Amino acid sequence: MHQIEHLTKIKVSTEKVYEAITTKEGLSAIWTPKLKVEPILGHVNEFDFDEGYITKMKVIALKESQQVTWHCIASDNEWQNTIINFDLRDKNNLTEIILTHRNWREITDYFRLCNYNWGMFLYRLKNYCEN
Amino acid sequence: MHQIEHLTKIKVSTEKVYEAITTKEGLSAIWTPKLKVEPILGHVNEFDFDEGYITKMKVIALKESQQVTWHCIASDNEWQNTIINFDLRDKNNLTEIILTHRNWREITDYFRLCNYNWGMFLYRLKNYCEN
Repeated sequence: MHQIEHLTKIKVSTEKVYEAITTKEGLSAIWTPKLKVEPILGHVNEFDFDEGYITKMKVIALKESQQVTWHCIASDNEWQNTIINFDLRDKNNLTEIILTHRNWREITDYFRLCNYNWGMFLYRLKNYCEN
Repeated sequence: MHQIEHLTKIKVSTEKVYEAITTKEGLSAIWTPKLKVEPILGHVNEFDFDEGYITKMKVIALKESQQVTWHCIASDNEWQNTIINFDLRDKNNLTEIILTHRNWREITDYFRLCNYNWGMFLYRLKNYCEN
């Protein structure tokens, strides 16, 4: 199994970052406006990226201002059954966010493109939270 | 050993991307203005990121418009002896660039931060080439 791992620093509280990655408002701005999300353990979030299928993410861990974990139960074949986790750490009034995307079966060009795109996701998250 | 792998698409020719990642002009805009670089096999490029040490990259492969490989011979401890490779592929008038940073001994927070920062490097490279 292979994994994607990113860390970045966002100059706002963990509460604000947590809100951005768990709510319709935040995820609409950062990821796709076509979505159904609820900050509820067990809920299946849905994201539509205009690719002909809906990406479904079951919320399997949720700790306020600390952790969000999604189990990808539907998407393209390479994402199927992968796990996306966000850990948030308070560091003197800024937030360190660690994003991991685990359980990739192979390192493919799509893995490489998704690694780049997770970087862009975090960059947009950072801009959204800080501005 | 662990590795960082990114892929992105840049809407210019492979020649232009190759020039950006091998010349003082390009790398000054994308990475750091404090640098000494030459597009010559065996040359040791130097990059200063104001961190109290100079990052030295020996050019160990160089194929015009196709590939650039650096062996990191001096930097912080985690980068020491790692290998950074850029592969360029022409895809109907755009360039696919694959960046790999191999030979990491551990997955650390610094690895995670560098993965994010390589994404930012490619984002700046893309903006530099396309604008």
